[in-house]
Amino acid sequence: MASEIKKIAVLTSGGDSPGMNAAIRSVVRTCAYMELECVAIYRGYQGMIEGDFKEMDARSVNNIINKGGTVLKSARCEEFRTKEGRQKAYEQLRKHNIDAFVVIGGNGSFTGALLFNKEFGFPVIGIPGTIDNDILGTSYTIGFDTAINTVVEAIDKIRDTASSHNRLFFVEVMGRDVGHIALNAGVGAGAEEILIPEQNLGLERLLDSLKRSKKSGKSSSIVIVAEGDKTGKNVFELKEYVEEHLPIYDVRVSVLGHIQRGGSPTCFDRVLASRMGVKAVEALRQGKSNYMVGIRDTKLVLVPIEEAISAHTAIDEELIRVSDIMTT
Amino acid sequence: MASEIKKIAVLTSGGDSPGMNAAIRSVVRTCAYMELECVAIYRGYQGMIEGDFKEMDARSVNNIINKGGTVLKSARCEEFRTKEGRQKAYEQLRKHNIDAFVVIGGNGSFTGALLFNKEFGFPVIGIPGTIDNDILGTSYTIGFDTAINTVVEAIDKIRDTASSHNRLFFVEVMGRDVGHIALNAGVGAGAEEILIPEQNLGLERLLDSLKRSKKSGKSSSIVIVAEGDKTGKNVFELKEYVEEHLPIYDVRVSVLGHIQRGGSPTCFDRVLASRMGVKAVEALRQGKSNYMVGIRDTKLVLVPIEEAISAHTAIDEELIRVSDIMTT
Amino acid sequence: MASEIKKIAVLTSGGDSPGMNAAIRSVVRTCAYMELECVAIYRGYQGMIEGDFKEMDARSVNNIINKGGTVLKSARCEEFRTKEGRQKAYEQLRKHNIDAFVVIGGNGSFTGALLFNKEFGFPVIGIPGTIDNDILGTSYTIGFDTAINTVVEAIDKIRDTASSHNRLFFVEVMGRDVGHIALNAGVGAGAEEILIPEQNLGLERLLDSLKRSKKSGKSSSIVIVAEGDKTGKNVFELKEYVEEHLPIYDVRVSVLGHIQRGGSPTCFDRVLASRMGVKAVEALRQGKSNYMVGIRDTKLVLVPIEEAISAHTAIDEELIRVSDIMTT
Amino acid sequence: MASEIKKIAVLTSGGDSPGMNAAIRSVVRTCAYMELECVAIYRGYQGMIEGDFKEMDARSVNNIINKGGTVLKSARCEEFRTKEGRQKAYEQLRKHNIDAFVVIGGNGSFTGALLFNKEFGFPVIGIPGTIDNDILGTSYTIGFDTAINTVVEAIDKIRDTASSHNRLFFVEVMGRDVGHIALNAGVGAGAEEILIPEQNLGLERLLDSLKRSKKSGKSSSIVIVAEGDKTGKNVFELKEYVEEHLPIYDVRVSVLGHIQRGGSPTCFDRVLASRMGVKAVEALRQGKSNYMVGIRDTKLVLVPIEEAISAHTAIDEELIRVSDIMTT
Repeated sequence: MASEIKKIAVLTSGGDSPGMNAAIRSVVRTCAYMELECVAIYRGYQGMIEGDFKEMDARSVNNIINKGGTVLKSARCEEFRTKEGRQKAYEQLRKHNIDAFVVIGGNGSFTGALLFNKEFGFPVIGIPGTIDNDILGTSYTIGFDTAINTVVEAIDKIRDTASSHNRLFFVEVMGRDVGHIALNAGVGAGAEEILIPEQNLGLERLLDSLKRSKKSGKSSSIVIVAEGDKTGKNVFELKEYVEEHLPIYDVRVSVLGHIQRGGSPTCFDRVLASRMGVKAVEALRQGKSNYMVGIRDTKLVLVPIEEAISAHTAIDEELIRVSDIMTT
Repeated sequence: MASEIKKIAVLTSGGDSPGMNAAIRSVVRTCAYMELECVAIYRGYQGMIEGDFKEMDARSVNNIINKGGTVLKSARCEEFRTKEGRQKAYEQLRKHNIDAFVVIGGNGSFTGALLFNKEFGFPVIGIPGTIDNDILGTSYTIGFDTAINTVVEAIDKIRDTASSHNRLFFVEVMGRDVGHIALNAGVGAGAEEILIPEQNLGLERLLDSLKRSKKSGKSSSIVIVAEGDKTGKNVFELKEYVEEHLPIYDVRVSVLGHIQRGGSPTCFDRVLASRMGVKAVEALRQGKSNYMVGIRDTKLVLVPIEEAISAHTAIDEELIRVSDIMTT
Repeated sequence: MASEIKKIAVLTSGGDSPGMNAAIRSVVRTCAYMELECVAIYRGYQGMIEGDFKEMDARSVNNIINKGGTVLKSARCEEFRTKEGRQKAYEQLRKHNIDAFVVIGGNGSFTGALLFNKEFGFPVIGIPGTIDNDILGTSYTIGFDTAINTVVEAIDKIRDTASSHNRLFFVEVMGRDVGHIALNAGVGAGAEEILIPEQNLGLERLLDSLKRSKKSGKSSSIVIVAEGDKTGKNVFELKEYVEEHLPIYDVRVSVLGHIQRGGSPTCFDRVLASRMGVKAVEALRQGKSNYMVGIRDTKLVLVPIEEAISAHTAIDEELIRVSDIMTT
Repeated sequence: MASEIKKIAVLTSGGDSPGMNAAIRSVVRTCAYMELECVAIYRGYQGMIEGDFKEMDARSVNNIINKGGTVLKSARCEEFRTKEGRQKAYEQLRKHNIDAFVVIGGNGSFTGALLFNKEFGFPVIGIPGTIDNDILGTSYTIGFDTAINTVVEAIDKIRDTASSHNRLFFVEVMGRDVGHIALNAGVGAGAEEILIPEQNLGLERLLDSLKRSKKSGKSSSIVIVAEGDKTGKNVFELKEYVEEHLPIYDVRVSVLGHIQRGGSPTCFDRVLASRMGVKAVEALRQGKSNYMVGIRDTKLVLVPIEEAISAHTAIDEELIRVSDIMTT
């Protein structure tokens, strides 16, 4: 299968996350170090189809390790979901003598890469870049650590004003179908209640918990609501519900939104991305394909992409318990 | 009028703002320095009516200079708008031998203080604490500098993800009826367009500006919308409007919300608050009343409260022009 | 061995680290949740000897999760190293009916706890709180993540001015005998060279590396120097050495110092501390003693204290390699 | 004198300061807006002598408003102090048809510009960019606000660990011959004592103050020392002195160093820089020369460079008094 790899392409795909630039830099510099050619693909699979390529050397990635977003841009690409789209992409890669690519992204991006490999036998390696931390086979995805810190800093600010007015805040955070951001940032921010998609305890329990919190003399309450939450109510509806059923509270709502995707990456995300970029290029050089680079404890691992995309990472039951105990 | 002042009360009232704690600390420590007694009133005028008081000494305000919000809590108080409410408040103050009070807050709080003084001849001094920077007679209010930095940091993050996807963002910021936060943070964040209540240029101009921005090759656009904006559309409606009339953009919305009220105050706000607290106590000692402490350039001034509440600070025309030029 | 545990004490000992307050809060709240009594011991073992104790309930630890340092204070204590000192401490604990204690600290603190247990059979559990991340048996210690972010943010700032003047900076970071902070923050900050105690490559290599870096067209260079570095030269001497042997550089020095110990803890450190506090109390309730709570991947573990203090955690060879590749 | 200005150059000179990039961006964009040509000069006067120029348009300065340092680089230049050096610089400017220049820097840079103008009648305007805030005629220089926030954030961190160990810290801050950074950041950080060049109260007073502070029950003390301080002792010598004369303290030292020059500029500095850039170009268009753009209260002013460099801005006596009162 593996003819020698001489030229590697790198792209970012799907939603952006902080640390993607550190991963790009790492792939580019590892290629330089191993004397491989390296090509950047702009705008994800769309740019692959259109041949939006650029040769990279070690200096092309100066001063990007601390930048949020992705200098290669990202995009979702409908065309790549079609056989024709992927055929065009393949021709572009061949035309530019590219032997393999590294895709930095999430589940959707990996699914595309796997399909592409199945059709053309083209070597691909994935690097998990998403704030959601929902990819099986890796304890951390690039961007998650930055996102939870952004959320915690925002809630620290909201708590200032909440405490000053004895208010209750519903704060909506990102995470799509999973509650990792909500649960971790909620514990980190000392939230009184955390509503996540994996666990629907019902609105009764929420009211009980808020009543208890009020009685215990707390000067404010913060309830974190994951965007994929299963209560059937969004934060605005939750506000109305509580105002109706528990009129002792002055309730406010905050939707944190896209600040969670940006910002200079944390040291953790920069180091993780740097390590994963090296591992990805090494894997390709060793003739490997269809793997995602993951981290287990402090060691990097290669996880079959098929496994990585087969399910979401489950929520940590022990952390749910910690969350319950902390709100005593 | 001015019998000797021996005991001063301090309270925070209305919406909280970062730096209020630094102002409280300053009033308390200045009293200690001048060997005056000092009493904290909790929960604004409500706490004044209810006698929610606490004796303070220099050590009572340790380690609060860097905290957001207000340790004295704040509240809006309907009862203080009534003659009966103010009578109760007056009785509480007399009962505790309080000779004067310093109120940290905005227009509403000052109006109450003025009324109170008219009725009972009670000495009052105001310190402008609001993120909106809308109080006449002072170039800066306490909390404004922190708020615009919070907004700028949030938009720096949003721009990361906006640039990565070539997106247009409408970002709603606070400021009630005035555009100071929007205009300053908009210039500071390099926004492409800034919609403020003081200036309604119409939606046509917005579309033109966005078209130009796109054509000029910018990778993203950020439009700041003050909450009091006069286009007649909120950020969600603006998104729909642009998507309909200018379908070249992928549009997103972010409502920054209450993070703008919190956070550790900037050095500017801490220093301003520290200075104003000293000035307020000094003014009372000198037998002054019905003044707000203001800052003009680098000098503190006393402004008649009546003047301070007579109108909002006008927006700076030169800064609007700078904003226009910067979006070239 | 384990008579029933009804009353648990918690103390912080040795150097402070960000997240210690989150761990204290967690121990206290877990006790409240499990209906155990909880006592705080101030100033580490010194306070234990002097009986500087305070009863705690769930509300005693409100609003400390986001604070750096330790609200219980910390201290090094010579007296606890003597048999007499420990005897006094034991008597204080007995007098207050304390059945077990949780000590949050590093190697020295654990050694003391172990000795104490050996002498009196008193149940103890350790929680690793140190910025150095040097404790065997846990992948992360509380405070390390915050410290490396503080370093990275400082170096991001230094790089601004280094780049503007084409300068070389030697930046000294903490870490005592180990290079974990230096290596992780160095990779995260994109340092050109990282000097750690575990690996002395000699000064020749440093000069070669700096020459190469200059030749490659980089606009600035940052060299991270761990305080325990083995070159035999501190940062000031390194500056002189390079100025003498490589006069092409304008060299500056920065000793980051104690900012590395403080600051609001990151989400990672807050969550880690919250989890470890629960685990520590649970371990005591289950009759366990002489264990340190550790984390392996995403799971908490109990590590015999004897093992934890037997050696420093080794530096990650793979990360050294990543560091080399990134400076290509 | 003023033939029509068609082409303007911009350079940064001397020490860099946060916000310089916002000023560069503003000069470039204002030229674009007014349909003037704009040229960037790299590495200050050295680059002027060497003809290190680059044509700029509005897009050349995308995404730099939030970056610390200066993208044009800066340098001190001995050659420009000679007649021959300035002659070469003049020839380069003429060769490139440059009609005027805007120099962003401090006293030294302005002195050079003035001399240059006297010799060649070449139109020059200065923009004050320095963290020291020491330039006469402007209430604020670009970078000062960012620097004092950096110092305050660092001291907030140091206080965490100082409080945890009941320690005394001497913290050295920048500011060259003036105490503006020390005084403002000291008040903002709640320092117990602030030593500035403008006021030498002697070491006796320091000891007295520290004794009082200890007695009052404070858990830590921070003493800010301006680098130009006149006690005759640096922070390390102060530590020794206090340890000898006041052995009740555990003393530590921190030299904040170059982190004070870097970092993303605050909103205040970005807005100030944006406004000053517009004003500078407008002044040149109006045929003005030898002025520095200053700010007085919220209004921009033009100050004769000769006046600006004639002396340092005096320290604010009222702020010294506030500082004394706050340490009660």
